[in-house]
Amino acid sequence: MGCDVSALNTVQFSNHTGYKQWKGTRVSAQEITDLWEGLKQSYLDNFDMMLSGYVPGAAAVEAVGCIAKELREKARAKKTDDQSPGRGSFFWVLDPVMGDNGRLYVAEDVVPAYRGLIPYADLILPNQFEAELLSEVKIHDQASLYRAIEVLHSRYGVPHVVITSLPLPLSLPPSPGEGEEPEQSRPPPTRTMSVVGSSMTSDRRPRPFRIPFSVFDCYFSGTGDMFAALMVTRMREAVHNTSTNNPDSGSAPDPRLEDVHSWLSPDGVDALDLPLARAAEKVLASMHEVLERTCAAMGAELRGAVRALKGKSDSADDLDPRTAHLLRSHAAELKLSRNLACLRNPGIRYHAEKM
Amino acid sequence: MGCDVSALNTVQFSNHTGYKQWKGTRVSAQEITDLWEGLKQSYLDNFDMMLSGYVPGAAAVEAVGCIAKELREKARAKKTDDQSPGRGSFFWVLDPVMGDNGRLYVAEDVVPAYRGLIPYADLILPNQFEAELLSEVKIHDQASLYRAIEVLHSRYGVPHVVITSLPLPLSLPPSPGEGEEPEQSRPPPTRTMSVVGSSMTSDRRPRPFRIPFSVFDCYFSGTGDMFAALMVTRMREAVHNTSTNNPDSGSAPDPRLEDVHSWLSPDGVDALDLPLARAAEKVLASMHEVLERTCAAMGAELRGAVRALKGKSDSADDLDPRTAHLLRSHAAELKLSRNLACLRNPGIRYHAEKM
Repeated sequence: MGCDVSALNTVQFSNHTGYKQWKGTRVSAQEITDLWEGLKQSYLDNFDMMLSGYVPGAAAVEAVGCIAKELREKARAKKTDDQSPGRGSFFWVLDPVMGDNGRLYVAEDVVPAYRGLIPYADLILPNQFEAELLSEVKIHDQASLYRAIEVLHSRYGVPHVVITSLPLPLSLPPSPGEGEEPEQSRPPPTRTMSVVGSSMTSDRRPRPFRIPFSVFDCYFSGTGDMFAALMVTRMREAVHNTSTNNPDSGSAPDPRLEDVHSWLSPDGVDALDLPLARAAEKVLASMHEVLERTCAAMGAELRGAVRALKGKSDSADDLDPRTAHLLRSHAAELKLSRNLACLRNPGIRYHAEKM
Repeated sequence: MGCDVSALNTVQFSNHTGYKQWKGTRVSAQEITDLWEGLKQSYLDNFDMMLSGYVPGAAAVEAVGCIAKELREKARAKKTDDQSPGRGSFFWVLDPVMGDNGRLYVAEDVVPAYRGLIPYADLILPNQFEAELLSEVKIHDQASLYRAIEVLHSRYGVPHVVITSLPLPLSLPPSPGEGEEPEQSRPPPTRTMSVVGSSMTSDRRPRPFRIPFSVFDCYFSGTGDMFAALMVTRMREAVHNTSTNNPDSGSAPDPRLEDVHSWLSPDGVDALDLPLARAAEKVLASMHEVLERTCAAMGAELRGAVRALKGKSDSADDLDPRTAHLLRSHAAELKLSRNLACLRNPGIRYHAEKM
């Protein structure tokens, strides 16, 4: 996508954990801090944006949070020193990786660690379960969804929120035993999901939009990471291409949006005109194209892998379940490198809607 | 470049060592082996090519070598099993990182470790110093260069060799005290260097070519790694686009070159027609474009960094030498991501010549 990136690996694993078995090591909080000290001592701490994803354990989450806080502080100081607003901008995209589908897959003390850091983030990318954990609002209809976003903006002051996948429709009548596994009594899942986003107003009110998208009937791993990585570049791009369009600015020259703290659009900007909505539309377009191609290649890849393992036959049906799962996981790896054009120049397919 | 890549990091450093200071950790031989075991247990060991670069210490070099040997063995076994030659191909590009300009920068026991592994490599990418270490031939003219390549092919049986930068002309009259720092009495270095490559014949004779290229008057780090990474993709591409063109094949269908062990062209193929030469030309074309753009951006980047550090002034002249070196190193980082087109579609500029 054209961005220079420094990766600070928080694990070195042989493979992603979707395979259910892996070898390798997690880095400690101390190692994260050491690497950051190494960058600083050589003046390599000039980052415009930061993306944080899975971080192993509460101490390591704190260490990552310290990096973001220092980068923000540094940006703020620079802003004052040389009188040029914007040169000090810094934007943290925080994916609060804690769990999914009602299940926590990190240690319990990671949750309060993230709660303490969200106020320093510019954009958070929780899934439904993580949004519920952070807002302490159970999302089961439009009203509770709105309430969860409201809490995220108001309690944490986080300017931008994208909840990365919500089933649609959300406005079903409450099922009996609401709150305990309500999904079980719902109709079979529809093949449409929604991304729901919001950039808050100056008084921390939501400006929500949703983007419905089709779900492929395939198993994938890493879609959350792909979404987050693409949001970083697309958010930056959307902001740099957007005037603030401030109806209250009168004759004063509009500040460029990238010079505004947290790239927050003026209150006059409608939800559907937010850079966040533009960015999410492009990200979903890329994801659709990559997932489509991954799905299309999957069958042949799996047959090839089975043939390589068993000789002539290419049917996965008589493999033991563990082997079948491993080969299926490999065949389902997102086909990114070979589909670079889908990442760079996707055809917009999904559009933001009012909620 | 479109290839799916698995990276096994042999270090996690805050920055490259050209800065002369860094923090972080090296991985142990055990960690390398563990990660490899993790890949194998999940059937993720199906690699067509492998590139190895800097590896910390002799034990870790051995561990990396074991991975390559197992991949080769696996490819060989597969070839026999399913009767389909080529499906079992494996190609190891080994950059024997040991030192430069007469100075070893790894432990001494790394040298014999590499000597033991070169016979398992398909392509090695030593610089002049490393070629001298491996061949035990001091390169000071065309004849000694030829002899060094001859030794690399014959002693180690390594099919493809590229020596990544040699001063030109090499055929100066021997200076007094030849053998001890002969460079000192030479004329000032010309701004042309050469890449010298060779793919051996079936009786291990060299087929050498050289590609002269211009040197930019800039300091860079990581050009060796860029060269190696690009050679992997370009070698694969050149082989897939090349018929073996075997004059002795008669009416039998030509085997595709990628199905031939080590992608070694038949003896009838001239040095200038080798896939290795085509690959190196494309790599040098990309490097020229990236280095040119890096050079062009360097001044402004350095001034920006100085201004960020000192406030108004942007001259690096009155910085202390350590700080100046750090800022210069950062400004000299290869501008890769933003110049993707130079990597993917460079304009060929340098051509292979007979030696």
